[in-house]
Amino acid sequence: MQLQFLGTGAGMPSKQRNTSSLALKLLEERRKIWLFDCGEATQHQILHTTLKPRKIEKIFITHLHGDHIFGLPGLLGSRSFLGGDEKLTIYGPKGLKEWIQLTLKISQTHLNYVMEIIEIEEGIIFEDDSFIVTAKELEHVIPCYGYRVEQKPLPGKLLVEKTSEIGVPKGPLLKRLKDGQDVTLEDGRLIRSADVTTPPISGFTVSILGDTRYCHKSIELSRDAHIVVHEATFDAGTEELAKPYGHSTILEAATVAKEAGAKALIANHISARFLPEAAKALETQGKSIFPDIWIASDFAEFEIKNGTVLERTS
Amino acid sequence: MQLQFLGTGAGMPSKQRNTSSLALKLLEERRKIWLFDCGEATQHQILHTTLKPRKIEKIFITHLHGDHIFGLPGLLGSRSFLGGDEKLTIYGPKGLKEWIQLTLKISQTHLNYVMEIIEIEEGIIFEDDSFIVTAKELEHVIPCYGYRVEQKPLPGKLLVEKTSEIGVPKGPLLKRLKDGQDVTLEDGRLIRSADVTTPPISGFTVSILGDTRYCHKSIELSRDAHIVVHEATFDAGTEELAKPYGHSTILEAATVAKEAGAKALIANHISARFLPEAAKALETQGKSIFPDIWIASDFAEFEIKNGTVLERTS
Ligand SMILES: [Zn+2]
Ligand SMILES: [Zn+2]
Repeated sequence: MQLQFLGTGAGMPSKQRNTSSLALKLLEERRKIWLFDCGEATQHQILHTTLKPRKIEKIFITHLHGDHIFGLPGLLGSRSFLGGDEKLTIYGPKGLKEWIQLTLKISQTHLNYVMEIIEIEEGIIFEDDSFIVTAKELEHVIPCYGYRVEQKPLPGKLLVEKTSEIGVPKGPLLKRLKDGQDVTLEDGRLIRSADVTTPPISGFTVSILGDTRYCHKSIELSRDAHIVVHEATFDAGTEELAKPYGHSTILEAATVAKEAGAKALIANHISARFLPEAAKALETQGKSIFPDIWIASDFAEFEIKNGTVLERTS
Repeated sequence: MQLQFLGTGAGMPSKQRNTSSLALKLLEERRKIWLFDCGEATQHQILHTTLKPRKIEKIFITHLHGDHIFGLPGLLGSRSFLGGDEKLTIYGPKGLKEWIQLTLKISQTHLNYVMEIIEIEEGIIFEDDSFIVTAKELEHVIPCYGYRVEQKPLPGKLLVEKTSEIGVPKGPLLKRLKDGQDVTLEDGRLIRSADVTTPPISGFTVSILGDTRYCHKSIELSRDAHIVVHEATFDAGTEELAKPYGHSTILEAATVAKEAGAKALIANHISARFLPEAAKALETQGKSIFPDIWIASDFAEFEIKNGTVLERTS
């Protein structure tokens, strides 16, 4: 998995930072991409990456402010035009469905794929064999959800040297052992799966939070996460200014990551007020509370290698 | 006046061409900008120009396809955020108002200015002392309007040497002569305005057409225009292909300009299929019918100097 930031600005686009969008690349895990928020010109940003719109399987919208959704209609149309024919599911707050449907209707945008729009409430909003996604409502000026994406543990690998030593015949028995089941051989011996496989490999957890002031649910969503993506619209010392706007400072973002016991924090939703120098200062401020911090820039890409978060250089 | 192209592509953004938008800069004439269409990321394109969103006085939408309108909500919000507090009027086809209103409502975009949305029919849609704008419905796959912008003649200049020679006293009489009225002096002499002013200076006419197949109304809107902006989604020889999509070839665009007796043609809505070489070929094809032709590129700017159209180099 990799996380690639497509827009790391706040409110309005600037030359340096586009409005919010973030791609969770699950190409090795499921040959798909999940998108979080879709500010205007997200499809333009994608043109400068290796991402293919037809591979976007799910789009999670945190809230309905324009800087998080105005790129959605254009991307939906382009995904279809660029050969996307597999189902797309969009998750987001109430109101999203009516807007998407009216927008596609008045613009006569026809999609060559099935689109499902799920207006969510708190709780588990998606689960399959390999992933589970939980949403909780954060504290912004309008309803806003944060998302926790957990990869389920991967089954251990079969130790083929051991199974051939024991004499397990090739075929269905091997598959059952690999899938975690114990089996009995023809000669009556019981073979335990745990004895012939490596231990399950634990999956990753990423929490991607929307616009919010400091709140307890951010911490709950981020518990023990490898990566927390948290907004930092304001800088240290302006907590009282940030609160009425439903936003956080970099110190509050760092506090969430620390309290949650997360491994790394990536701060986004950076105001255009902060020029590159000032963005660097945000990082220094955050480090005073939580050391493993990055200030995201557009197109920055991160991955988890052996449990550690690294910025990828391309 | 200058015409600056903000997006000259067709259907989808590409790295070279954004979706449709065009600024008619009327800074000398009325300290305002008029925008024609507003594809996604028009506000992003504006960041790379000297245009100020708060100076946009009117936005004319040709039709409701996404590549012509998906940048509108973002621009409306940013115009407010960037200090725009003067009234904005938006003209376009039926359906535009409901979509803008729902979009601003669900995204809770608050505007610090009065916005009027006028769903137009054919005819004169705007007229004041200095401009008149006429709309006609073209032939696309959905309702689509073309616009003709005419600047009214500018009053002649007062020849002050002549009036002082005649002995017209300074004050209101001079103003009346300048405004085209004849006056009688205290000594009984009748002074004709025409004798002490230069002739009225004729204004410019620009026709900005939306997506359309070749049609007679394009020619009517473009009659004797200084500049015709016409789409050229297809290249020469593919007329039968273009028609069912409600689009034109470069030859049909050139034919419209020729039949209308226009001075210059600027072709836009250029498909991403045409790489720079092929766009050059479009120009050559068009010249076979109408010599004064340009293929617009994003950010290209044109002006009329002494009745002649020039591409501005910045
Ligand atoms: Zn927000
Ligand atoms: Zn169209």
